Amino acid sequence: MAGVSPMAASSLAQQPFPTPSPFTFSTASARSNTRPSIHLCSLILRFLALIFSFVCAFSLATSTPKKQGRAPSSFNEYPELMYCFIVTIFTFIYSAFQLFKRVCDITYRGILIPDKISDYISFILDQLVGYLLLSSSSVAIPAIQHIEHTESLWKATIIAMSMSFVTFFAIATCGLFSGYKLCKRIIW
Amino acid sequence: MAGVSPMAASSLAQQPFPTPSPFTFSTASARSNTRPSIHLCSLILRFLALIFSFVCAFSLATSTPKKQGRAPSSFNEYPELMYCFIVTIFTFIYSAFQLFKRVCDITYRGILIPDKISDYISFILDQLVGYLLLSSSSVAIPAIQHIEHTESLWKATIIAMSMSFVTFFAIATCGLFSGYKLCKRIIW
Repeated sequence: MAGVSPMAASSLAQQPFPTPSPFTFSTASARSNTRPSIHLCSLILRFLALIFSFVCAFSLATSTPKKQGRAPSSFNEYPELMYCFIVTIFTFIYSAFQLFKRVCDITYRGILIPDKISDYISFILDQLVGYLLLSSSSVAIPAIQHIEHTESLWKATIIAMSMSFVTFFAIATCGLFSGYKLCKRIIW
Repeated sequence: MAGVSPMAASSLAQQPFPTPSPFTFSTASARSNTRPSIHLCSLILRFLALIFSFVCAFSLATSTPKKQGRAPSSFNEYPELMYCFIVTIFTFIYSAFQLFKRVCDITYRGILIPDKISDYISFILDQLVGYLLLSSSSVAIPAIQHIEHTESLWKATIIAMSMSFVTFFAIATCGLFSGYKLCKRIIW
């Protein structure tokens, strides 16, 4: 609102918005002006990220050591897998928060967090979580070689890595959407 | 240009651009309208990425095996370091191309690649190179543990990893700028 010149303001007062204006980003109308398909895609992707990150963390957590071998058979004995597990838990909490926020937005019309702050937080955290997920998945791949093929942890790690990569793609796409939304807010 | 409604077009014809319009993104005026500080920052970051990726690749390539030990002493015997080396070379070529394009833009006023295609290519490749750099750096970190501390390769890997992470930050920031530029193009 601060960047609007007097000339632009007067011309906007004369006619009904020839081009999109800064005023279209008021709290009430922001939801209806942004394309609904992006909102829906984002919601679906956040839900998928929640599911996939849960499956990833669940598969690692449930791979309990069944036998006493030479190699460690629990995921918390491998620092790479532990890193991956922590990042996945963080992703799960973040996805759950985003879904909760969106449901609150639909129900109470954006009282939970102001739209501006929410856009900045979403963009920064999407980028951060995306990079962390990719980093943890990449680190954990060489660790698969050190796990015995007969162990239940081996299968669990393969599943967790696949899920982690899929979660990364979902979060990266969400990051594109939230970046687009933030740019729209900055530019208008 | 295709998304301009007749009403918006007529109002734009009547008065000298009350709010920024799609026409401000013609090839000739795009450079002057985008903030020059972003252009300068982007140019500096691309140059830094070029330097850092060169140092990273150079430090790995020059760590020649000096002694015959049990552990492999050349970086190409470690798949993680080989992956990191290939990604760094790719980053170096990409940064060189971007710098060359920008110098051509300044000299010949954007004849090399049309601005629209260039924005899309820059954004996609920035994202891709950023993710590849982070992935390769993350993968190579556990490999450091397997290299003997007395070897020249150990020092070279430490330098290469640091440079790779710094290059990632430079490319990620360039990615933010190119994303902002692309969003501006899509929205107007």
